Amino acid sequence: MKEFDLIRVAKEILYVNRDDVLIGIDDDCALVDVGVKLALTTDCIHERSDLPRGILPEEIGHLALAVNLSDLAGCGAKPLFFLYTITLCDRWLNDFDRILMGMRSLADRYDVAIVGGDTDFGDELHISGFAVGRVDRFVGRCGAKVGDYVCITGPLGKAQLSLEQLLDGIGRDKIAYSQSLFKPEPRVFEGFEIARHANAMTDISDSLAISLHQIAERSDVGILIYEDLIPINHLTPYVDKNKALDLFLYSGGDYELLYTSKVCEHIRIGEVVEDEGVKIVRRDGCMEEIEFRGYAHI
Amino acid sequence: MKEFDLIRVAKEILYVNRDDVLIGIDDDCALVDVGVKLALTTDCIHERSDLPRGILPEEIGHLALAVNLSDLAGCGAKPLFFLYTITLCDRWLNDFDRILMGMRSLADRYDVAIVGGDTDFGDELHISGFAVGRVDRFVGRCGAKVGDYVCITGPLGKAQLSLEQLLDGIGRDKIAYSQSLFKPEPRVFEGFEIARHANAMTDISDSLAISLHQIAERSDVGILIYEDLIPINHLTPYVDKNKALDLFLYSGGDYELLYTSKVCEHIRIGEVVEDEGVKIVRRDGCMEEIEFRGYAHI
Repeated sequence: MKEFDLIRVAKEILYVNRDDVLIGIDDDCALVDVGVKLALTTDCIHERSDLPRGILPEEIGHLALAVNLSDLAGCGAKPLFFLYTITLCDRWLNDFDRILMGMRSLADRYDVAIVGGDTDFGDELHISGFAVGRVDRFVGRCGAKVGDYVCITGPLGKAQLSLEQLLDGIGRDKIAYSQSLFKPEPRVFEGFEIARHANAMTDISDSLAISLHQIAERSDVGILIYEDLIPINHLTPYVDKNKALDLFLYSGGDYELLYTSKVCEHIRIGEVVEDEGVKIVRRDGCMEEIEFRGYAHI
Repeated sequence: MKEFDLIRVAKEILYVNRDDVLIGIDDDCALVDVGVKLALTTDCIHERSDLPRGILPEEIGHLALAVNLSDLAGCGAKPLFFLYTITLCDRWLNDFDRILMGMRSLADRYDVAIVGGDTDFGDELHISGFAVGRVDRFVGRCGAKVGDYVCITGPLGKAQLSLEQLLDGIGRDKIAYSQSLFKPEPRVFEGFEIARHANAMTDISDSLAISLHQIAERSDVGILIYEDLIPINHLTPYVDKNKALDLFLYSGGDYELLYTSKVCEHIRIGEVVEDEGVKIVRRDGCMEEIEFRGYAHI
């Protein structure tokens, strides 16, 4: 079974029907009502699948929190609290304090209190995180409306480009977008600004393509994006145009948000339409399906 | 560095001073105020260190939730929501549904909604859990008062006795307390009943000895327990009296609660006193220090 099959199994077994659970395992975050509305999310990182070679301990702590803050941002939640479990292995044992300092530093930037942790030991470094956020207006994947603009908060493909350069032997100081790979910034402030007007939103974890499909399917609409509107100038100094488009559509790790709204404050790449599916309109006017594929872990 | 040293490092680096964080990384759970008071906790299990040989997939799911519910119970919180991250390895991949069904079954017993999950792949089965509970009266480790009874919700040492039998080659159906080892029951209902009157409480994770020390130190009191009051009849059919007492004091995994109160509804084993430290009064009247030691993982 692949990850998306497992998610389907989990949704079936863990189905919840309760007044205080507004959204369960079906979006970036769960939405619960305890008198106030809270977004809850969890995400983990592993050394072998998620950490690029040469990463610093502070950057690992940063990443472990950032993946969870990005989930909250993807729903428009304001982060409040964070808890983690960390499995340390011999190689990282003496860097425990630096990992936590990296986590703390990012937490302070967004006024997140780290209120719980559990530490144990194993063969591979692993950090699971759990974040709680306050929600004024929850924006999930299911509200996209025909006629909405389709927008992203920033250019995509930078993390994967940089990773591929690193794997080709280029040093971390010489790759194109070192910050995007080693210390990406979750779009926390953007998330709750966009939530004021957006009809659907998600953070782009695996790829733009997968996130587009998720919004289209959950909202029961189609999405058209236009090659003309897709900025690839940040990639073409390093790869050809076809590869650049592929990185833009099908790679993850950039921590940007995708949303649909009548208002676009960022990069408009397309529109919500009545038809089913997700398609790209090429420069010559031809329309092609966008595949459901994305980020394979490192 | 050992686990308790790492916890000290984490407390220093992650120190929080915020009005909505009433208790941070310093107890079984964090206590936060979002308009209502919530307890937040996290705990994880690993195949190699936490799972006894022969455990069934449903029991793994049960355990992953139970360790977190026990933390909530240790503060007197009523569990509401649970999220998990699971790292699957080849060996357990086809049991994913059974693991989740075990989790779901325990969740239903205590009306817990499982609202989030993240699944990935690695070399060892690992489940991190995060639980949220509602708090009417939070009882932490720091409120014990001189003159309180010291009480536990049930007899101890059963899980470790059973584990040692299993490691000696006895089958899982023949060991003394199979249920205590493979499918322990967190004291959820007891936890919020006790919270109505207790001055201090914690769940016994590592050992009674460690939990007694934690309450004594945090409450700035001493604790005396009496050998006469310690029930070991459930252990002496299998081991001699000295070993039974050692199991009772220094082993973990029984999921019982320890509390101090003017009211004892369960097993009274001692009292809170003015002196420092934690001591046991032997049958002959001699007093001995109780060591700070406990459960080494499997």
